[in-house]
Amino acid sequence: MNLTVTGRSGRMGQSVIAAIEAEANAELHSSHDKGEDLVAALQGSEGVIDFTLPSLTDDLLEKALAAGTPLVIGTTGHSDEQRAAIAKAAETLPIVFASNYSVGVNTLFWLTRHAARILGNETFDIEVTEMHHRHKVDAPSGTARTLLEILNEETNTSYNNDIDHGRVGETGPRPQGRIGMHTLRGGDVVGDHTVMFAADGERVELTHKASSRMTFASGAVRAALWLQGKPAGLYSMQDVLGLS
Amino acid sequence: MNLTVTGRSGRMGQSVIAAIEAEANAELHSSHDKGEDLVAALQGSEGVIDFTLPSLTDDLLEKALAAGTPLVIGTTGHSDEQRAAIAKAAETLPIVFASNYSVGVNTLFWLTRHAARILGNETFDIEVTEMHHRHKVDAPSGTARTLLEILNEETNTSYNNDIDHGRVGETGPRPQGRIGMHTLRGGDVVGDHTVMFAADGERVELTHKASSRMTFASGAVRAALWLQGKPAGLYSMQDVLGLS
Amino acid sequence: MNLTVTGRSGRMGQSVIAAIEAEANAELHSSHDKGEDLVAALQGSEGVIDFTLPSLTDDLLEKALAAGTPLVIGTTGHSDEQRAAIAKAAETLPIVFASNYSVGVNTLFWLTRHAARILGNETFDIEVTEMHHRHKVDAPSGTARTLLEILNEETNTSYNNDIDHGRVGETGPRPQGRIGMHTLRGGDVVGDHTVMFAADGERVELTHKASSRMTFASGAVRAALWLQGKPAGLYSMQDVLGLS
Amino acid sequence: MNLTVTGRSGRMGQSVIAAIEAEANAELHSSHDKGEDLVAALQGSEGVIDFTLPSLTDDLLEKALAAGTPLVIGTTGHSDEQRAAIAKAAETLPIVFASNYSVGVNTLFWLTRHAARILGNETFDIEVTEMHHRHKVDAPSGTARTLLEILNEETNTSYNNDIDHGRVGETGPRPQGRIGMHTLRGGDVVGDHTVMFAADGERVELTHKASSRMTFASGAVRAALWLQGKPAGLYSMQDVLGLS
Repeated sequence: MNLTVTGRSGRMGQSVIAAIEAEANAELHSSHDKGEDLVAALQGSEGVIDFTLPSLTDDLLEKALAAGTPLVIGTTGHSDEQRAAIAKAAETLPIVFASNYSVGVNTLFWLTRHAARILGNETFDIEVTEMHHRHKVDAPSGTARTLLEILNEETNTSYNNDIDHGRVGETGPRPQGRIGMHTLRGGDVVGDHTVMFAADGERVELTHKASSRMTFASGAVRAALWLQGKPAGLYSMQDVLGLS
Repeated sequence: MNLTVTGRSGRMGQSVIAAIEAEANAELHSSHDKGEDLVAALQGSEGVIDFTLPSLTDDLLEKALAAGTPLVIGTTGHSDEQRAAIAKAAETLPIVFASNYSVGVNTLFWLTRHAARILGNETFDIEVTEMHHRHKVDAPSGTARTLLEILNEETNTSYNNDIDHGRVGETGPRPQGRIGMHTLRGGDVVGDHTVMFAADGERVELTHKASSRMTFASGAVRAALWLQGKPAGLYSMQDVLGLS
Repeated sequence: MNLTVTGRSGRMGQSVIAAIEAEANAELHSSHDKGEDLVAALQGSEGVIDFTLPSLTDDLLEKALAAGTPLVIGTTGHSDEQRAAIAKAAETLPIVFASNYSVGVNTLFWLTRHAARILGNETFDIEVTEMHHRHKVDAPSGTARTLLEILNEETNTSYNNDIDHGRVGETGPRPQGRIGMHTLRGGDVVGDHTVMFAADGERVELTHKASSRMTFASGAVRAALWLQGKPAGLYSMQDVLGLS
Repeated sequence: MNLTVTGRSGRMGQSVIAAIEAEANAELHSSHDKGEDLVAALQGSEGVIDFTLPSLTDDLLEKALAAGTPLVIGTTGHSDEQRAAIAKAAETLPIVFASNYSVGVNTLFWLTRHAARILGNETFDIEVTEMHHRHKVDAPSGTARTLLEILNEETNTSYNNDIDHGRVGETGPRPQGRIGMHTLRGGDVVGDHTVMFAADGERVELTHKASSRMTFASGAVRAALWLQGKPAGLYSMQDVLGLS
C-alpha cells in the first residue's frame, strides 16, 4: 500500500515515516510539508496519514476528496464544524478518526469498558491514575478523559458531577459511585494510565504504559492498511482492531 | 436462601459463615463439622457450600444427591474418578465447581483471555508474575496455572513446552512466543497476580490483588444464590458471573 | 519482659496481646480495660503499651509515673498541654512516643529523607500517592503527612505553599519544586504509600504496603523490648530502629 | 571543562556528546572513532569518557597515562588483568570506574544497602525483579547482579548459594534467608528494577525505572565534572554522588 505522510519535518511525521519503513506491507508514496503542493503529493497515493494540526484539516479534507484518497486523521481538538466536515467527507471516503492510535491504549479502552460492566461501582470503588512528563499543560490527559467517559457510560455517572480530581481535608467516607482521578506530572514520562477497581478483599487494576511515540505511529499505519478496500465510512481505532 | 456450610471449624468454613451473615438474601440453615450428621444438616437446606477436603467430596455428593441439595464445591485436587463423579451428580443437581470463587480473579481470567486474543504473542511478549505468602508450598499458584492455560489456549502454546519459570545465565534473545512465569514468595501476601503484554513502545498489564480470604467466601455465597432455581448442570464461576 | 496492655477489648489492644504472645522475649503481665484498676494492672509490670485514646493519656502518665513503668504510647491527636506532660514524664521514665510503630513505615520515612537529600527537587520531580479504605475520613493520611514533612524539610518547601492535592484543567507546565500529593480511596485497603522521584530518563520509587494491623502491634512490642534498661527520655520509633 | 568522547559513531558515544552539549559546565573538546588518532584527540583534553569496548581499555589507559587525562570508564566485562591495569593507572590518574552511571540506579544501590541493613532477612523476605527488552541476552542484568551483591553483603548470603532464579513445582515453604531473583524480558523496556522486602503485614519496595539511555550519559558527564581537580585514585559513582 502506497502511503502519503503530512507534516514531514514534525516529530510525529518523522515517526510515521519510520513506521511505514518498518512495515512490510506499506510503502512511502510521498511526504508533504508546509508550503508544498498537497495535490501533487496525493496523486497516486492509496492513503494519507495526518498528524499535523486541526487547523489544516479543512484543506486536507478538500484535497483528499478531490483525489479520492482514504484518510487516517490523528489530530485532535477540532471544532464542531470540523467534526461535521469530517463526517461529511466520510460519506465519500473511508476515514479512520481516533484520539489515540496505540493498539495498547485502545485495548485498555475496551478492557476498561468490560471490566466496569462486570464489576460495577457498587461493591467496587473506581480510581484512575495517569502520569505524564512535566511539560504537559492540561489535566487529566485526553486518554484519561476517554477512560472516564467509558467508565461514566458503564456506571451511569457523569464527568461533571461524579469525578474527584484529588482529595484534601475532612472528606468524610468515600461516597459510593464517585470516581477518583489522579493526575501525576514529572520527568519525561511518555504516558502511564491505570484504572483500579477496589472492593473489600480485592483489587483489579488495568494499566497501560507508553514508552515511545512509535507506538502511535505504528498504530496509524495499521489503521491505513486496514482501510484498504473498505467502503466509505467514519471508522474508529476500535473498528480497526475489531473491538467494536 | 437457606444455606448449609461444611467444615464449620475450619478457616474457610468460618469465612463462608461470615459471608452468609453479611448477605441480605442468604441465611445460615445449618453448619457441619467432622463427626457430625451430614444428612441431618442437609435436611431442608437449599444449598451447601463446601471448602473442606477433596477426600470428603464422595460422601458429600452421595448425601447431596439423596437430599436433592444444590452444591457449591470449593475444594481442588480431585482425582479423575472424583471429577467424573461430580459431572455425574451434575446430571441430577445444579453444581458450581470452580478453582477460585473471587469475582475479581474470575474477571482477571476473562480479561486475560480477551487481551490475549486482541494483542496476541507476535508483537507482544507475555510475562506473568504472582506473589504469595512464604508458607505456600507449590509454584506457580493454581490461579497462575489457570492464567497460563488461558494464555496457552489463546496463543496456541502449551504449559509443558512454552513456559519459562525464571531465567538465568546466557539466555540469548527472548524467543518469540514464550511465556515468562515468575513466582514470588514472601511475608503473608494473600495473592497478587499480574499478566503483562510488552511490545515495542508500550505495555498492557492486568493485575489482581487479594487482601482477604473473605473475597473467596463472598464469591461462593454469590454462586449459591445464583444456583437458586437453576436446572441440573455443571457450572463454572464464569457462568455465575455471566462471563462465559 | 512482662508487659501490660491497655484497651484490652479494643481492636488494637487485641492485636498487641497477640503480638506479645508471638514474641519469645515478651510475656503478657496484665491487661486493662475501661473501669478496671490501672494501678493494680501496672504493679510488677516492666512496660505498658497504650493504643487507647488521647483523652486517657493524662491518667496513664500519672499512674505510670507512680509505678515507675516505662511507656509505649501509640495514641495520636494530643493537645500541646498533653505533649508537654508526656515530655515532662519522660524526664523520669523512658517513653517511646510515635505516630506509627510499623518497622516498614519508619524505614520508608528514613529512606525518603535520604533519597530526597540525594536526588533533590531540581532535576527530579516529587509525587506522593497513598491509598486507604473507603471509610477513611481525612486526606491525605497521617503517614503521608509525615512523608510530606520530611520532603519539605529536605527540599526547603512547605506543606501550605508547595503541595498540589490533585490537578485539573489548564494547569500549564509543572512548576519546579512543587510536590504532587494524590489520595486514593477504595475497598478495604489497609494502607499503601509511594514516594516517586521522576527525572528525564528515570524514576525512583519508594513504596510501603501495609496488609494488617499486626504490623503496628509488633512494632510497639519491639519498642517495649527496646526500652528495657534504657534511661529516662523521650524516644521515637526511629530511635528504636537505630535510624536517628 | 573540555571533554573527549570515544566511540563517536556508537549509540552511547552519541548520547554522551548530546549530554555534554546539554551541560553548561562542559564542552566537547574532541571526539574519537575507530581508526583515528587517539593521542591527538586527548591533546589538551581535561577528561575522556569511554563507553566503547573492554578490549580497547588497554590502549586507552596507555594513552591517557601519557597525556595525563582523567578517565571516566563506562565499559564492563574486563578481565582480572585489565582490572589490575585500571587500578594501577589510578595511582597516577583520577579515574571513575562504574558499572552504571545513572544517578537513580546508584541511589537505588545506596537505598537497597541501607534498607537491607535496617530490615534484615529474618522477618523480611527479599525478592528482586528486573525487566529488560527482548534483545537482552543475559540474565539477570548487571544492575540486578550489583543489587544482589549488596543484599548478599548486608545479609551474609552469597550469589552462588542463596539465590533462587525462579521457582517451579513442589518447592515447600520458602526457606528463610533465600533471595528470589526474577528476570522478565519483553518489548523494548530500557530497564526496570525492584527490590522487595516482605514481612507479615507489610512490604517495602524500592524501584528504579529507566526510560532513556540519556540518563547513563548524563551521569557519566556528571562524573567527569566531579573529577576536575581530584587527586589520582580509583573512584566509584557512589563517590561521585557523595554516597560512600
